[in-house]
Amino acid sequence: MAEVKLLGSWLSPFSRRVETALKLKNVEYEFVDEDLQSKSALLLKSNPVHQKVPVLLHNDRPIAESQVILEYIDETWKEGFPILPKDPYERAQARFWARFIDEKCLPATWKALWASEEREKAMEEACELLKILENELKDKKFFAGETVGLVDIVANFIAFWLRAIQELVGVELLSKEKLPKLYNWSDEFCSVFQENLPPKDRLVAHFRGRLQSTTTTTTSS
Amino acid sequence: MAEVKLLGSWLSPFSRRVETALKLKNVEYEFVDEDLQSKSALLLKSNPVHQKVPVLLHNDRPIAESQVILEYIDETWKEGFPILPKDPYERAQARFWARFIDEKCLPATWKALWASEEREKAMEEACELLKILENELKDKKFFAGETVGLVDIVANFIAFWLRAIQELVGVELLSKEKLPKLYNWSDEFCSVFQENLPPKDRLVAHFRGRLQSTTTTTTSS
Repeated sequence: MAEVKLLGSWLSPFSRRVETALKLKNVEYEFVDEDLQSKSALLLKSNPVHQKVPVLLHNDRPIAESQVILEYIDETWKEGFPILPKDPYERAQARFWARFIDEKCLPATWKALWASEEREKAMEEACELLKILENELKDKKFFAGETVGLVDIVANFIAFWLRAIQELVGVELLSKEKLPKLYNWSDEFCSVFQENLPPKDRLVAHFRGRLQSTTTTTTSS
Repeated sequence: MAEVKLLGSWLSPFSRRVETALKLKNVEYEFVDEDLQSKSALLLKSNPVHQKVPVLLHNDRPIAESQVILEYIDETWKEGFPILPKDPYERAQARFWARFIDEKCLPATWKALWASEEREKAMEEACELLKILENELKDKKFFAGETVGLVDIVANFIAFWLRAIQELVGVELLSKEKLPKLYNWSDEFCSVFQENLPPKDRLVAHFRGRLQSTTTTTTSS
């Protein structure tokens, strides 16, 4: 087995976070594209609690949960590109925003994208949260400053997936008019990490199936 | 202003986590007991995003979110009692379990304690999650081994609040019979941190008010 192996999925932003970090650190790894409808025995054994991708296997030892993996990568390959800042206060700020994205922004934007009921309310809530992120960007190029860091990597869903899905389902959460800084950031992020993002056509085709199933039922999922 | 100030609440397990860490590190601090029904201007200014306790103010700079604060304390007062292990893999495991507690165990046990509908299902789900924690304890005294660490501190709700509330509302989630290891751990934790736990009578009186309001309405909160 390779020293570093990633059990992930081509379409998962959580799995792509880990790939981004490994690439920034120049760590060679083997990527295993899991079929999320039929997960491998290795995945189920490596992450018995959540049974989800991503799982990083480093010398056969499994680490699960993308933010936990990102910290592990930063602490293990210390010499490479820094994912978290050095200063404890700045580290705390990065962790705060990374948690804010996972705990608040992602559930709210996901709900707004797929809501079949009360979409307006869901849209409003998601926009308010994205506005908070917009304000946090201030006039920086990335959340971390001139180069990317933990928060940028964790926000990858907003940079790419959100824009692709909102176009497909016909809503507008992130636009140049509403959130110009976040929009520019998302352009910048996608241009830097172009090679580490799913093919847009394939992603849209995947979610088109989901859209068709939600529009033929009355419940959102 | 004191160098270290904690905006917290006597009844909040999240706030008590931070106090536990500060005490383990022998850091002197000023405690501000916030009225959660009427939060101070300082709290709202210090944590505008969540407007919640705890907030640690270190030389006037605010840090919010209890797990973020615990890592900050560990990184800032490095020489004191170690809250996280040194080894990156062990650190990742500690972070994994701390997240599991906040993301899975706490919402599920809270729901089971206060559910007015489908309590049986909620109880079952909570018990399954607590069983996973029980298994993780193995034959260790604390989650971290012979002494407490991040996971123990984060699990304080299970050690104390859960037992006090389950007695009050008349359900049994954590018992010596069902979960002997977790029960013993909770005894051990409470005996070590007795002075840093809310007075049981006051806590029970606080939640009795909540119980009365939930039994007179049909919705849980």
